[in-house]
Amino acid sequence: MFDPKKFIEESIKEIREQIGNRKAIIALSGGVDSSVAAVLTHKAIGDRLLAVFVDTGLMRKGEPEEVTKIFRDQLGLNFKCIDAKDRFLNALKGVTDPEEKRKIIGRVFIEVFEEVARENGEEVLVQGTIAPDWIESEGKIKTHHNIALPGGMVLEVVEPLRDLYKDEVRLVAKELGLPDKIVHRQPFPGPGLAVRILGEITEEKLNICREANAIVEEEIEKAGLDKELWQYFAAVLDTKATGVKGDIRDYNWIVALRFVKSIDAMTAHVPELPWDVLKRISKRITSEIPNVARVVLDITDKPPATIEFE
Amino acid sequence: MFDPKKFIEESIKEIREQIGNRKAIIALSGGVDSSVAAVLTHKAIGDRLLAVFVDTGLMRKGEPEEVTKIFRDQLGLNFKCIDAKDRFLNALKGVTDPEEKRKIIGRVFIEVFEEVARENGEEVLVQGTIAPDWIESEGKIKTHHNIALPGGMVLEVVEPLRDLYKDEVRLVAKELGLPDKIVHRQPFPGPGLAVRILGEITEEKLNICREANAIVEEEIEKAGLDKELWQYFAAVLDTKATGVKGDIRDYNWIVALRFVKSIDAMTAHVPELPWDVLKRISKRITSEIPNVARVVLDITDKPPATIEFE
Repeated sequence: MFDPKKFIEESIKEIREQIGNRKAIIALSGGVDSSVAAVLTHKAIGDRLLAVFVDTGLMRKGEPEEVTKIFRDQLGLNFKCIDAKDRFLNALKGVTDPEEKRKIIGRVFIEVFEEVARENGEEVLVQGTIAPDWIESEGKIKTHHNIALPGGMVLEVVEPLRDLYKDEVRLVAKELGLPDKIVHRQPFPGPGLAVRILGEITEEKLNICREANAIVEEEIEKAGLDKELWQYFAAVLDTKATGVKGDIRDYNWIVALRFVKSIDAMTAHVPELPWDVLKRISKRITSEIPNVARVVLDITDKPPATIEFE
Repeated sequence: MFDPKKFIEESIKEIREQIGNRKAIIALSGGVDSSVAAVLTHKAIGDRLLAVFVDTGLMRKGEPEEVTKIFRDQLGLNFKCIDAKDRFLNALKGVTDPEEKRKIIGRVFIEVFEEVARENGEEVLVQGTIAPDWIESEGKIKTHHNIALPGGMVLEVVEPLRDLYKDEVRLVAKELGLPDKIVHRQPFPGPGLAVRILGEITEEKLNICREANAIVEEEIEKAGLDKELWQYFAAVLDTKATGVKGDIRDYNWIVALRFVKSIDAMTAHVPELPWDVLKRISKRITSEIPNVARVVLDITDKPPATIEFE
């Protein structure tokens, strides 16, 4: 049986040994993994850890504010929020290919992050890697390794959660007193809302996507369905369709809702949600968000579909 | 109380008087209105009526064959099926604007129709106009009027159903012994599957749209839901999304399902269909039709959406 209290004690000791007197940096997304890694490291080395939140502009509604409030104000971490919204949007202008979009987001993210690390002279990079991350992606990998950032900076990597699985990370998060919002946060893709916007990413589509996801999360949580769903979100399709506003024919965006149940994300199925919840979400999206003509519900299991749209 | 038997008798007499010894032509779509108008006129003037079915290539699966079987083979009308598939597809190549697509389809349709009428020397055009058509579109319009086709041909218009409403037309259709398929046929848009294909109309999307609509109709009818729905159909969106086939990531089309209940098509709402029917349709579409990654269900009422997608 996994004992979160014991894990925390041992982990803090180990982090202290690994980092010594050096300065460390972590890219904190607010997801449960990076949050737990940051709080553990902060307990181990205090303000010698800098937690950096990069605001890509591809975040959910209120996310930068919320992460700042929790980690800087409530937990007292040495915390920095970098506003890089324009930089990401400019780099993404005109790009429609999903792979290309992912690559650009990854590249700009590392550029921004490396600039901060260089400025502060950190030597260690803390990462919230958990067991399935490295088992799935690389198989066996050395526990101790360095990473070379594209700009030439070399950092030693420390991964305090590398032997844990998601449910264990959540137990540790709870034991550390992290707020429920973080403990039970649904998985959110690295490139953020970008994978929920098909075709070119524009401010208009980004705004629709952000507001629609806020409505989906609010209604699903209000209906008490959040605990039984693996993921619940909205995407903006790259197609306009007709609608009517007043007496006027209107040509506007389509928002797709995605709700799935899953054990491990390898397969997933569409749950039979209550129709009143679905209809309430649909009505709120078309009435509260400008330029949305229709709301559709994805009714495809994985396989043959993936969970996210891109 | 509307008496279909009496209407048929009087209508036949009236048509005979109006047309006299001249030759007439009708564009027969297989919809209940044009079907009733054609059969009534055939009863009045026999083979002097030519019923023309223009195969635009934008028809539902098996439609040209079915209409030919019913009207030529079973009812013995003087019937001609014109294969104009290539002409329509060529005219639509590269066109994405929905208004533009509609205009092109209308123009090519009239061109094809006028060529046939000119060849045969018809003087009268029979139309299945019913009361809501002219009330909605033009207000008061003369009972007797001529129409000038773009190529210069002038035809006198005869509209035997202009005082009827849809439910009355269906009573007449039944009384005339038309098959159930025609009597209870759901409304099908003039431009055919074109309004169910967003963006450019290609043979690939047309094929997906035709097969998906056949699956939807088959499953809805098998589940006995056809009588309670105003319309049920599938559309192909102009967006690709990811899916997985085997272990391979796949980037393919999204099919949207549309089911609505309505009294008069002015407003419509999304019915709470059984989930097993929805899931069966979704599974059949992704497994039976190549190049479909996802199936989504439109959950937007009218307003704010329209019934069709374009």
